[in-house]
Amino acid sequence: MSRDQAHEPGRGGPTRRQLLFGGAVAGIGAVAAIGADTLVRRDGRGSETSEPDMALNGGLSVPFYGTHQAGIETPPQAHVTLVALDLRPEVDRDGLRRLLRILTDDAARLTQGAPALADSEPELAQVPARLTVTFGFGPELVRRGMPDGSTAGALPTWLRPLPAFGVDRLEDAWNDGDLLLQIGADDAFTVAHAQRMLLKDARSLTTVRWTQSGFRRAHGSEKSGTTMRNLFGQVDGTVNPAPTTPDFDDLVWIGDGWLAGGTSMVVRRISMDLDAWDRLDRSGREQSTGRFLSTGAPLTGTREHDEPDFEATTAIGFPVIPEFSHVRRARSDDTSERIFRRGYNYDDAPTGDQVSSSGLLFVSFQADVDTQFVPLQRRLDELDLLNEWTTPIGSAVFAIPPGCSEGGFVGETLLGDGS
Amino acid sequence: MSRDQAHEPGRGGPTRRQLLFGGAVAGIGAVAAIGADTLVRRDGRGSETSEPDMALNGGLSVPFYGTHQAGIETPPQAHVTLVALDLRPEVDRDGLRRLLRILTDDAARLTQGAPALADSEPELAQVPARLTVTFGFGPELVRRGMPDGSTAGALPTWLRPLPAFGVDRLEDAWNDGDLLLQIGADDAFTVAHAQRMLLKDARSLTTVRWTQSGFRRAHGSEKSGTTMRNLFGQVDGTVNPAPTTPDFDDLVWIGDGWLAGGTSMVVRRISMDLDAWDRLDRSGREQSTGRFLSTGAPLTGTREHDEPDFEATTAIGFPVIPEFSHVRRARSDDTSERIFRRGYNYDDAPTGDQVSSSGLLFVSFQADVDTQFVPLQRRLDELDLLNEWTTPIGSAVFAIPPGCSEGGFVGETLLGDGS
Repeated sequence: MSRDQAHEPGRGGPTRRQLLFGGAVAGIGAVAAIGADTLVRRDGRGSETSEPDMALNGGLSVPFYGTHQAGIETPPQAHVTLVALDLRPEVDRDGLRRLLRILTDDAARLTQGAPALADSEPELAQVPARLTVTFGFGPELVRRGMPDGSTAGALPTWLRPLPAFGVDRLEDAWNDGDLLLQIGADDAFTVAHAQRMLLKDARSLTTVRWTQSGFRRAHGSEKSGTTMRNLFGQVDGTVNPAPTTPDFDDLVWIGDGWLAGGTSMVVRRISMDLDAWDRLDRSGREQSTGRFLSTGAPLTGTREHDEPDFEATTAIGFPVIPEFSHVRRARSDDTSERIFRRGYNYDDAPTGDQVSSSGLLFVSFQADVDTQFVPLQRRLDELDLLNEWTTPIGSAVFAIPPGCSEGGFVGETLLGDGS
Repeated sequence: MSRDQAHEPGRGGPTRRQLLFGGAVAGIGAVAAIGADTLVRRDGRGSETSEPDMALNGGLSVPFYGTHQAGIETPPQAHVTLVALDLRPEVDRDGLRRLLRILTDDAARLTQGAPALADSEPELAQVPARLTVTFGFGPELVRRGMPDGSTAGALPTWLRPLPAFGVDRLEDAWNDGDLLLQIGADDAFTVAHAQRMLLKDARSLTTVRWTQSGFRRAHGSEKSGTTMRNLFGQVDGTVNPAPTTPDFDDLVWIGDGWLAGGTSMVVRRISMDLDAWDRLDRSGREQSTGRFLSTGAPLTGTREHDEPDFEATTAIGFPVIPEFSHVRRARSDDTSERIFRRGYNYDDAPTGDQVSSSGLLFVSFQADVDTQFVPLQRRLDELDLLNEWTTPIGSAVFAIPPGCSEGGFVGETLLGDGS
């Protein structure tokens, strides 16, 4: 089955991908129309507002319904806010079903540029800007969501806090959570409005545990497909599998049970010590990552996507790509030990003498945390020179249920339809 | 003298405005070239990364040198960070000159997409995305910057904390500051890198007092020229003078002294109680602002830019636009009592049971705080129904020196050239 067909099996409607193409085509039409307008504005007013009206990417939307939830295969938007909610003590299976029905409805509307029901600022919903809302479940939510008398079968073994790693300095304020909302869009205002609507509808049943916001390059800042740089200046994510990678489905999607069509999500808040990093010279930094800073090419290559040659040695016999380098430690001979990363940078307000409070909102999706993420992280934990400058300060694991069809809701495969 | 000529008097080079047009024209060329590329990508890969490569607005830059500093007339970018620095006790006039020379050099390079001197992540500087850096001086900086033995002539009377208003609930953490950096760009990553470079070069002489970040709609989300909505959903800034307004120069730019070509800047952090606002019905909200929420038109009009008719009455004799409405209270018969607003929304992480921690980073520029901002704010302080839902929690006033030429630095009219 092709990936296109996989999106909405058995339905005649357009797939998520086809709808995205539709948006793109509309965009091109809009672009074609701008030349004249821009020229008129230059002649007529001489205003400093002189950029051309580019195609309005604020109008682009990502379909909500589908086999998988949106916000995973979706090319990362410029902005994300992750919100971890804790369930109030009294919320039971019926309450959860009510909560997820409401939040699903909100997300389905907002992502299409329509106000949520009882949206008190409906005008703020009109710019979807590729908004996606992705729901994740912590272990406590799954436990409360299981039918009475069922055993622990619904709880995946990997749905628990990660094993302790030596590099971790976890702060409880950034750990865990019962219900995760991943809200992403190319417009920070769109994220803010969606977040507010969702939290308004969630607050009678939940409290906010933590909120983390991150960014990538703005939509249109760079050619699409450019690999992100992190705040260390590293090209970060070159070998990340793409939705077009042949074994992407096997790496990411779960095959059976209530999570069929779903996945797992690891969220790690990784503080980056930019000051210490800056004290390292450029060559030292390149040795620690195993890649050139300028191009992202491995130290044995010239282009970003060249395969690293771990056998190559220097004139005096040392490996060109050091043993302790990140690119070497992150690589496994077992190709099933791969994950799909979809992280963001964060840069919060520095305080006192701090020059920055910055890092990476590491996000990965994988079919199985224990067999894919954990072995990789163990190798990096044992030996990875980058650990000198990075410190995980928060950690959470969520089960990502499959998507749903119109009329359904995210979580129905666990919670039933209530009838 | 036309406004275009005003930018770089006496020089043969292009003005800031002409350079912006240059960027726009290059943008159009890039747009014309994309169609084919996009089609190739659609046919070739069927990847979900299917948006067209629009003109790369990341490459647009705003000239740094000029009569006025950039970041005032510049159409507001999508993101801003305001950083208020305090001078360390030992910093004297020579130290200030050194500091401003370095920061000017950093800003001149970064805004053009070039790394700062000794930029340890030069690759992160390559996307200017209309970056501007605007410097503002608090009273303490001006006092230390005055030549030995000079009297207080250099200190404008308005350069002091604003008079206390009844609505204020100021928190010292958000007040005042010696040196302000206004860092704006259409790309959050660009803002983060510029902020870090500037703070690295400032830290031996300053400490961070406060940092505030805000956003507007993303570049390309809406048609350019669309008036911003705030988080209340109000169209906010309809009557704001534009750089093309005939008396803009008189309203904004100072005519003589070391601040000639400069202006004043008021920064107010205004907390907005979105929850209480949402409890008000739509008609109540429209009464409190005097404008329709849907279009931003005054309650006596049908389009955003219609003039409000304050004389119009309802069938039973009440004014259609209430006395207590914001649009009425903000309006003065004295046209010199106007300000130029260039504010942003903020939306910080909510904590505990908070659903939002949101508001407005109010920023205004005016030639004289005392004769323009203060009377307006007094009228709003006395009676403005919006005060029910908004609370100023931070306040600062800065003198914005004029721009400089290549080889000079921002602040040289106060600090001399050191020769």
